[in-house]
Amino acid sequence: MSDLIIWTYDWVPEMPRGFVRDLRLRWACEEAGLSYRVQTIPFDGRETNHLEQQPFGQVPFLTDGAVEVFESGACLLHLARKSEVLMPRDPVGEAQTLQWTIAALNSIEMATVPWWFLRMSGEKDNKLGGWVEQRLGQLERVLSERAWLAADRFTVADLLMADVLRVPEVRGFGQRPATEAYVRRVTDRPAFGVAHTDQIRQFEVADRER
Amino acid sequence: MSDLIIWTYDWVPEMPRGFVRDLRLRWACEEAGLSYRVQTIPFDGRETNHLEQQPFGQVPFLTDGAVEVFESGACLLHLARKSEVLMPRDPVGEAQTLQWTIAALNSIEMATVPWWFLRMSGEKDNKLGGWVEQRLGQLERVLSERAWLAADRFTVADLLMADVLRVPEVRGFGQRPATEAYVRRVTDRPAFGVAHTDQIRQFEVADRER
Repeated sequence: MSDLIIWTYDWVPEMPRGFVRDLRLRWACEEAGLSYRVQTIPFDGRETNHLEQQPFGQVPFLTDGAVEVFESGACLLHLARKSEVLMPRDPVGEAQTLQWTIAALNSIEMATVPWWFLRMSGEKDNKLGGWVEQRLGQLERVLSERAWLAADRFTVADLLMADVLRVPEVRGFGQRPATEAYVRRVTDRPAFGVAHTDQIRQFEVADRER
Repeated sequence: MSDLIIWTYDWVPEMPRGFVRDLRLRWACEEAGLSYRVQTIPFDGRETNHLEQQPFGQVPFLTDGAVEVFESGACLLHLARKSEVLMPRDPVGEAQTLQWTIAALNSIEMATVPWWFLRMSGEKDNKLGGWVEQRLGQLERVLSERAWLAADRFTVADLLMADVLRVPEVRGFGQRPATEAYVRRVTDRPAFGVAHTDQIRQFEVADRER
Protein backbone atom coordinates (compact mmCIF):
# COMPACT_ATOMS: atom_id res chain seq x y z
CA MET A 1 0.00 0.00 0.00
CA SER A 2 1.37 3.36 -0.99
CA ASP A 3 2.21 5.97 1.60
CA LEU A 4 1.49 8.71 -0.94
CA ILE A 5 -2.04 10.02 -0.50
CA ILE A 6 -3.57 12.78 -2.62
CA TRP A 7 -6.44 14.48 -0.82
CA THR A 8 -9.29 16.09 -2.73
CA TYR A 9 -13.02 16.75 -2.32
CA ASP A 10 -15.48 13.85 -2.25
CA TRP A 11 -17.59 15.59 -4.89
CA VAL A 12 -17.65 18.82 -6.89
CA PRO A 13 -20.25 20.34 -9.26
CA GLU A 14 -19.99 19.75 -13.01
CA MET A 15 -18.06 22.88 -13.93
CA PRO A 16 -14.74 22.37 -12.18
CA ARG A 17 -14.53 18.68 -13.03
CA GLY A 18 -11.36 17.97 -14.91
CA PHE A 19 -9.81 21.11 -13.41
CA VAL A 20 -9.69 20.47 -9.64
CA ARG A 21 -6.04 20.79 -8.79
CA ASP A 22 -5.65 17.30 -7.39
CA LEU A 23 -5.27 16.53 -11.09
CA ARG A 24 -1.83 18.13 -11.07
CA LEU A 25 -0.69 15.70 -8.40
CA ARG A 26 -2.30 12.64 -9.99
CA TRP A 27 -0.65 13.61 -13.28
CA ALA A 28 2.78 14.03 -11.68
CA CYS A 29 2.50 10.63 -9.97
CA GLU A 30 1.43 9.01 -13.23
CA GLU A 31 4.36 10.58 -15.10
CA ALA A 32 6.82 9.46 -12.46
CA GLY A 33 5.33 6.00 -11.92
CA LEU A 34 4.79 6.75 -8.22
CA SER A 35 2.05 4.69 -6.63
CA TYR A 36 -0.55 6.73 -4.77
CA ARG A 37 -4.04 6.64 -3.35
CA VAL A 38 -6.72 9.31 -3.47
CA GLN A 39 -8.67 10.11 -0.33
CA THR A 40 -11.37 12.69 0.15
CA ILE A 41 -12.78 15.29 2.49
CA PRO A 42 -16.39 16.46 2.29
CA PHE A 43 -17.08 19.18 -0.26
CA ASP A 44 -19.90 20.36 1.99
CA GLY A 45 -18.32 22.38 4.78
CA ARG A 46 -15.01 22.66 2.90
CA GLU A 47 -14.47 26.24 4.10
CA THR A 48 -13.79 25.01 7.63
CA ASN A 49 -13.68 21.18 7.71
CA HIS A 50 -9.97 20.75 6.90
CA LEU A 51 -8.25 23.96 7.97
CA GLU A 52 -5.70 21.98 9.96
CA GLN A 53 -4.57 20.34 6.72
CA GLN A 54 -5.14 23.29 4.39
CA PRO A 55 -5.53 26.66 6.12
CA PHE A 56 -7.21 28.25 3.08
CA GLY A 57 -9.92 25.57 2.94
CA GLN A 58 -8.81 24.29 -0.45
CA VAL A 59 -7.58 21.12 -2.08
CA PRO A 60 -5.37 19.35 -2.86
CA PHE A 61 -3.00 18.45 -0.12
CA LEU A 62 -0.63 15.54 0.02
CA THR A 63 0.45 13.15 2.74
CA ASP A 64 3.64 11.18 2.32
CA GLY A 65 4.17 9.20 5.49
CA ALA A 66 4.88 11.78 8.20
CA VAL A 67 5.21 14.59 5.66
CA GLU A 68 2.17 16.76 4.92
CA VAL A 69 2.16 19.33 2.14
CA PHE A 70 -0.48 21.71 0.80
CA GLU A 71 -0.37 24.10 -2.18
CA SER A 72 -0.35 22.20 -5.46
CA GLY A 73 2.88 23.91 -6.51
CA ALA A 74 4.61 22.79 -3.32
CA CYS A 75 3.21 19.26 -3.68
CA LEU A 76 4.61 19.10 -7.22
CA LEU A 77 8.05 20.21 -6.06
CA HIS A 78 7.88 17.63 -3.29
CA LEU A 79 7.02 14.91 -5.80
CA ALA A 80 9.77 16.16 -8.12
CA ARG A 81 12.32 15.25 -5.44
CA LYS A 82 11.24 11.64 -5.84
CA SER A 83 11.71 11.29 -9.57
CA GLU A 84 14.09 12.61 -12.16
CA VAL A 85 11.26 12.25 -14.68
CA LEU A 86 9.77 15.38 -13.14
CA MET A 87 12.94 17.38 -12.55
CA PRO A 88 16.51 16.91 -13.82
CA ARG A 89 19.21 16.44 -11.21
CA ASP A 90 21.91 18.61 -12.74
CA PRO A 91 22.05 22.10 -11.14
CA VAL A 92 21.31 24.02 -14.35
CA GLY A 93 18.35 21.86 -15.36
CA GLU A 94 17.02 21.84 -11.82
CA ALA A 95 17.16 25.64 -11.55
CA GLN A 96 15.42 26.02 -14.91
CA THR A 97 12.66 23.66 -13.81
CA LEU A 98 12.26 25.48 -10.52
CA GLN A 99 12.07 28.92 -12.14
CA TRP A 100 9.45 27.88 -14.68
CA THR A 101 7.40 26.12 -12.02
CA ILE A 102 7.31 29.33 -10.02
CA ALA A 103 6.68 31.37 -13.19
CA ALA A 104 3.56 29.30 -13.88
CA LEU A 105 2.27 30.19 -10.40
CA ASN A 106 3.48 33.72 -9.89
CA SER A 107 3.82 35.26 -13.37
CA ILE A 108 1.08 33.53 -15.36
CA GLU A 109 -1.53 32.22 -12.93
CA MET A 110 -1.28 35.35 -10.78
CA ALA A 111 -2.65 37.26 -13.78
CA THR A 112 -5.01 34.67 -15.28
CA VAL A 113 -6.84 33.52 -12.13
CA PRO A 114 -7.96 36.97 -10.88
CA TRP A 115 -8.78 38.00 -14.48
CA TRP A 116 -10.95 34.92 -14.85
CA PHE A 117 -12.46 35.52 -11.38
CA LEU A 118 -13.54 39.03 -12.39
CA ARG A 119 -15.02 37.68 -15.62
CA MET A 120 -16.98 35.11 -13.65
CA SER A 121 -18.23 37.96 -11.44
CA GLY A 122 -19.71 39.66 -14.50
CA GLU A 123 -16.78 41.92 -15.45
CA LYS A 124 -16.08 40.51 -18.89
CA ASP A 125 -13.86 43.41 -19.89
CA ASN A 126 -11.90 44.01 -16.74
CA LYS A 127 -8.66 45.90 -16.28
CA LEU A 128 -6.62 42.76 -15.72
CA GLY A 129 -7.08 41.81 -19.39
CA GLY A 130 -4.11 43.89 -20.52
CA TRP A 131 -1.87 42.26 -17.95
CA VAL A 132 -2.98 38.77 -19.02
CA GLU A 133 -2.39 39.69 -22.66
CA GLN A 134 1.11 40.96 -21.91
CA ARG A 135 2.15 37.90 -19.92
CA LEU A 136 0.67 35.42 -22.40
CA GLY A 137 2.38 37.32 -25.22
CA GLN A 138 5.74 37.08 -23.44
CA LEU A 139 5.19 33.37 -22.93
CA GLU A 140 4.22 32.90 -26.59
CA ARG A 141 7.60 34.34 -27.54
CA VAL A 142 9.36 31.78 -25.33
CA LEU A 143 7.27 28.88 -26.61
CA SER A 144 7.90 29.90 -30.23
CA GLU A 145 11.53 29.04 -29.67
CA ARG A 146 11.37 25.75 -27.82
CA ALA A 147 9.21 22.70 -27.20
CA TRP A 148 9.66 22.49 -23.41
CA LEU A 149 10.19 25.24 -20.84
CA ALA A 150 13.22 23.79 -19.05
CA ALA A 151 16.20 21.59 -19.80
CA ASP A 152 15.09 20.65 -23.35
CA ARG A 153 12.71 17.99 -22.04
CA PHE A 154 9.39 17.52 -20.28
CA THR A 155 9.51 18.53 -16.63
CA VAL A 156 7.07 19.30 -13.84
CA ALA A 157 7.22 22.94 -14.98
CA ASP A 158 5.49 21.95 -18.24
CA LEU A 159 2.90 19.97 -16.34
CA LEU A 160 2.04 22.97 -14.21
CA MET A 161 2.26 25.60 -16.95
CA ALA A 162 0.06 23.55 -19.29
CA ASP A 163 -2.46 23.05 -16.50
CA VAL A 164 -2.60 26.81 -15.96
CA LEU A 165 -2.93 27.49 -19.68
CA ARG A 166 -5.52 24.83 -20.55
CA VAL A 167 -8.31 26.67 -18.68
CA PRO A 168 -10.80 27.33 -21.51
CA GLU A 169 -11.06 31.09 -20.91
CA VAL A 170 -7.27 31.44 -20.96
CA ARG A 171 -6.88 29.15 -23.97
CA GLY A 172 -9.47 31.14 -25.89
CA PHE A 173 -7.98 34.55 -25.07
CA GLY A 174 -6.31 35.67 -28.32
CA GLN A 175 -4.38 33.72 -30.94
CA ARG A 176 -1.13 32.23 -29.71
CA PRO A 177 -0.23 29.32 -32.00
CA ALA A 178 2.96 28.28 -30.21
CA THR A 179 1.18 28.26 -26.86
CA GLU A 180 -1.73 26.29 -28.26
CA ALA A 181 0.65 23.71 -29.75
CA TYR A 182 2.46 23.55 -26.42
CA VAL A 183 -0.71 22.96 -24.42
CA ARG A 184 -1.62 20.15 -26.84
CA ARG A 185 1.86 18.65 -26.69
CA VAL A 186 1.83 18.53 -22.91
CA THR A 187 -1.77 17.43 -22.39
CA ASP A 188 -1.46 14.76 -25.10
CA ARG A 189 0.82 12.87 -22.75
CA PRO A 190 -0.78 9.60 -21.60
CA ALA A 191 -0.27 10.47 -17.93
CA PHE A 192 -2.49 13.53 -18.31
CA GLY A 193 -5.19 11.36 -19.87
CA VAL A 194 -5.11 8.90 -16.98
CA ALA A 195 -5.22 11.65 -14.36
CA HIS A 196 -8.03 13.48 -16.14
CA THR A 197 -10.13 10.38 -16.67
CA ASP A 198 -9.64 9.26 -13.08
CA GLN A 199 -10.75 12.60 -11.68
CA ILE A 200 -13.86 12.78 -13.87
CA ARG A 201 -14.72 9.17 -12.98
CA GLN A 202 -14.33 9.81 -9.24
CA PHE A 203 -16.84 12.64 -9.31
CA GLU A 204 -19.26 10.66 -11.52
CA VAL A 205 -19.22 7.81 -9.00
CA ALA A 206 -19.82 10.38 -6.26
CA ASP A 207 -22.87 11.65 -8.17
CA ARG A 208 -24.48 8.25 -7.90
CA GLU A 209 -23.78 8.00 -4.18
CA ARG A 210 -24.96 11.51 -3.39
CA MET B 1 34.87 37.32 -5.34
CA SER B 2 31.47 35.79 -4.94
CA ASP B 3 29.87 33.84 -7.74
CA LEU B 4 26.45 34.83 -6.48
CA ILE B 5 25.13 37.83 -8.39
CA ILE B 6 21.75 39.45 -7.75
CA TRP B 7 20.55 41.38 -10.79
CA THR B 8 18.27 44.36 -10.45
CA TYR B 9 17.54 47.66 -12.20
CA ASP B 10 20.16 50.42 -12.23
CA TRP B 11 17.54 52.90 -11.03
CA VAL B 12 13.84 53.02 -10.17
CA PRO B 13 11.49 55.92 -9.33
CA GLU B 14 10.85 56.85 -5.68
CA MET B 15 7.70 54.80 -5.13
CA PRO B 16 8.95 51.23 -5.49
CA ARG B 17 12.17 51.87 -3.58
CA GLY B 18 12.43 49.51 -0.65
CA PHE B 19 10.06 47.13 -2.42
CA VAL B 20 11.87 46.03 -5.58
CA ARG B 21 12.06 42.29 -5.27
CA ASP B 22 15.84 42.06 -5.42
CA LEU B 23 15.39 42.91 -1.72
CA ARG B 24 14.08 39.39 -1.11
CA LEU B 25 17.32 37.93 -2.45
CA ARG B 26 19.61 40.39 -0.65
CA TRP B 27 17.72 39.62 2.56
CA ALA B 28 18.05 35.86 2.10
CA CYS B 29 21.79 36.16 1.44
CA GLU B 30 22.20 38.37 4.51
CA GLU B 31 20.29 35.88 6.69
CA ALA B 32 22.37 32.98 5.41
CA GLY B 33 25.70 34.77 5.42
CA LEU B 34 26.15 34.11 1.71
CA SER B 35 28.45 36.56 -0.02
CA TYR B 36 26.97 38.15 -3.12
CA ARG B 37 27.30 41.05 -5.50
CA VAL B 38 24.58 43.20 -7.01
CA GLN B 39 24.71 44.02 -10.70
CA THR B 40 22.29 46.02 -12.75
CA ILE B 41 20.49 46.27 -16.06
CA PRO B 42 19.09 49.56 -17.36
CA PHE B 43 15.66 50.53 -16.06
CA ASP B 44 15.11 52.35 -19.35
CA GLY B 45 14.18 49.74 -21.91
CA ARG B 46 13.52 47.10 -19.24
CA GLU B 47 10.55 45.69 -21.18
CA THR B 48 12.90 44.24 -23.79
CA ASN B 49 16.53 44.70 -22.72
CA HIS B 50 16.92 41.51 -20.68
CA LEU B 51 14.33 39.06 -22.03
CA GLU B 52 17.00 36.38 -22.42
CA GLN B 53 17.57 36.50 -18.67
CA GLN B 54 13.99 37.26 -17.59
CA PRO B 55 11.34 36.60 -20.25
CA PHE B 56 8.76 38.81 -18.51
CA GLY B 57 11.09 41.82 -18.49
CA GLN B 58 11.26 41.96 -14.70
CA VAL B 59 13.81 41.77 -11.92
CA PRO B 60 15.37 40.17 -10.00
CA PHE B 61 17.25 37.29 -11.45
CA LEU B 62 20.18 35.48 -9.98
CA THR B 63 23.37 34.04 -11.40
CA ASP B 64 25.30 31.47 -9.44
CA GLY B 65 28.23 30.37 -11.56
CA ALA B 66 26.69 28.51 -14.50
CA VAL B 67 23.24 28.48 -12.91
CA GLU B 68 20.78 31.22 -13.86
CA VAL B 69 17.44 31.63 -12.08
CA PHE B 70 14.62 34.13 -12.41
CA GLU B 71 11.40 34.52 -10.37
CA SER B 72 12.15 35.74 -6.87
CA GLY B 73 10.38 32.71 -5.38
CA ALA B 74 12.58 30.33 -7.37
CA CYS B 75 15.71 32.32 -6.48
CA LEU B 76 14.80 32.05 -2.79
CA LEU B 77 14.32 28.29 -3.04
CA HIS B 78 17.64 28.05 -4.87
CA LEU B 79 19.37 30.02 -2.09
CA ALA B 80 17.61 27.89 0.53
CA ARG B 81 19.48 24.87 -0.81
CA LYS B 82 22.68 26.56 0.24
CA SER B 83 21.86 27.25 3.87
CA GLU B 84 19.91 25.51 6.59
CA VAL B 85 19.26 28.97 8.05
CA LEU B 86 16.71 29.46 5.29
CA MET B 87 15.20 25.97 5.20
CA PRO B 88 15.46 23.06 7.62
CA ARG B 89 16.90 19.83 6.27
CA ASP B 90 14.51 17.36 7.90
CA PRO B 91 11.75 16.22 5.52
CA VAL B 92 8.86 17.54 7.62
CA GLY B 93 10.40 20.97 8.19
CA GLU B 94 11.47 21.20 4.57
CA ALA B 95 7.97 20.40 3.30
CA GLN B 96 6.43 22.96 5.65
CA THR B 97 8.85 25.62 4.44
CA LEU B 98 8.17 24.76 0.82
CA GLN B 99 4.38 24.86 1.23
CA TRP B 100 4.39 28.23 2.99
CA THR B 101 6.80 29.68 0.44
CA ILE B 102 4.39 28.68 -2.32
CA ALA B 103 1.41 29.86 -0.25
CA ALA B 104 2.95 33.34 -0.05
CA LEU B 105 3.16 33.42 -3.84
CA ASN B 106 0.06 31.56 -4.94
CA SER B 107 -2.50 32.01 -2.13
CA ILE B 108 -1.68 35.44 -0.71
CA GLU B 109 0.18 37.42 -3.38
CA MET B 110 -2.07 36.06 -6.14
CA ALA B 111 -4.90 37.91 -4.41
CA THR B 112 -3.10 40.98 -3.09
CA VAL B 113 -1.10 41.99 -6.18
CA PRO B 114 -4.02 42.14 -8.66
CA TRP B 115 -6.20 43.78 -5.97
CA TRP B 116 -3.55 46.43 -5.46
CA PHE B 117 -3.08 46.77 -9.25
CA LEU B 118 -6.79 47.51 -9.69
CA ARG B 119 -6.65 50.07 -6.87
CA MET B 120 -3.70 51.76 -8.56
CA SER B 121 -5.77 51.83 -11.76
CA GLY B 122 -8.44 53.85 -9.96
CA GLU B 123 -10.71 51.00 -8.82
CA LYS B 124 -10.44 51.56 -5.08
CA ASP B 125 -13.38 49.29 -4.29
CA ASN B 126 -12.80 46.43 -6.67
CA LYS B 127 -14.24 42.94 -6.58
CA LEU B 128 -10.97 41.36 -5.51
CA GLY B 129 -11.29 42.99 -2.08
CA GLY B 130 -13.44 40.19 -0.72
CA TRP B 131 -10.94 37.59 -1.85
CA VAL B 132 -8.05 39.48 -0.24
CA GLU B 133 -10.05 39.83 2.98
CA GLN B 134 -10.80 36.11 3.08
CA ARG B 135 -7.19 35.04 2.50
CA LEU B 136 -5.74 37.54 4.97
CA GLY B 137 -8.34 36.43 7.51
CA GLN B 138 -7.33 32.80 7.06
CA LEU B 139 -3.70 33.75 7.49
CA GLU B 140 -4.50 35.80 10.61
CA ARG B 141 -5.97 32.65 12.15
CA VAL B 142 -2.73 30.75 11.46
CA LEU B 143 -0.53 33.56 12.76
CA SER B 144 -2.61 33.83 15.93
CA GLU B 145 -1.40 30.38 16.85
CA ARG B 146 2.29 30.53 16.07
CA ALA B 147 5.25 32.87 15.69
CA TRP B 148 6.68 31.39 12.48
CA LEU B 149 4.95 29.71 9.55
CA ALA B 150 7.06 26.57 9.30
CA ALA B 151 9.08 24.31 11.60
CA ASP B 152 8.76 26.55 14.69
CA ARG B 153 11.55 28.84 13.51
CA PHE B 154 12.37 31.54 10.98
CA THR B 155 12.60 30.20 7.43
CA VAL B 156 12.62 31.59 3.92
CA ALA B 157 8.83 31.20 3.96
CA ASP B 158 8.60 33.93 6.62
CA LEU B 159 10.95 36.14 4.65
CA LEU B 160 8.74 35.87 1.58
CA MET B 161 5.39 36.04 3.37
CA ALA B 162 6.43 39.10 5.36
CA ASP B 163 7.65 40.77 2.18
CA VAL B 164 4.26 40.14 0.57
CA LEU B 165 2.40 41.41 3.63
CA ARG B 166 4.48 44.53 4.35
CA VAL B 167 3.18 46.32 1.23
CA PRO B 168 1.47 49.39 2.78
CA GLU B 169 -1.89 48.88 1.06
CA VAL B 170 -2.00 45.26 2.25
CA ARG B 171 -0.79 46.11 5.74
CA GLY B 172 -3.45 48.79 6.07
CA PHE B 173 -6.32 46.61 4.84
CA GLY B 174 -8.31 45.80 7.99
CA GLN B 175 -7.21 45.03 11.53
CA ARG B 176 -5.19 41.86 11.91
CA PRO B 177 -3.12 42.12 15.09
CA ALA B 178 -1.37 38.74 14.79
CA THR B 179 -0.38 39.48 11.20
CA GLU B 180 0.86 42.94 12.11
CA ALA B 181 2.95 41.53 14.96
CA TYR B 182 4.28 38.89 12.57
CA VAL B 183 5.30 41.39 9.91
CA ARG B 184 7.11 43.40 12.60
CA ARG B 185 8.79 40.31 14.02
CA VAL B 186 10.12 39.26 10.63
CA THR B 187 11.11 42.68 9.32
CA ASP B 188 12.79 43.60 12.63
CA ARG B 189 15.47 41.06 11.80
CA PRO B 190 18.83 42.76 11.18
CA ALA B 191 19.21 41.08 7.78
CA PHE B 192 16.08 42.81 6.53
CA GLY B 193 17.46 46.15 7.69
CA VAL B 194 20.72 45.64 5.82
CA ALA B 195 18.96 44.55 2.62
CA HIS B 196 16.47 47.42 2.79
CA THR B 197 19.12 50.06 3.50
CA ASP B 198 21.36 48.73 0.73
CA GLN B 199 18.58 48.85 -1.85
CA ILE B 200 17.54 52.39 -0.91
CA ARG B 201 21.15 53.52 -0.96
CA GLN B 202 21.80 51.98 -4.39
CA PHE B 203 18.95 53.93 -5.95
CA GLU B 204 19.97 57.15 -4.17
CA VAL B 205 23.46 56.84 -5.61
CA ALA B 206 21.89 56.21 -9.01
CA ASP B 207 19.88 59.43 -8.64
CA ARG B 208 23.10 61.41 -8.43
CA GLU B 209 24.57 59.73 -11.49
CA ARG B 210 21.44 60.06 -13.56
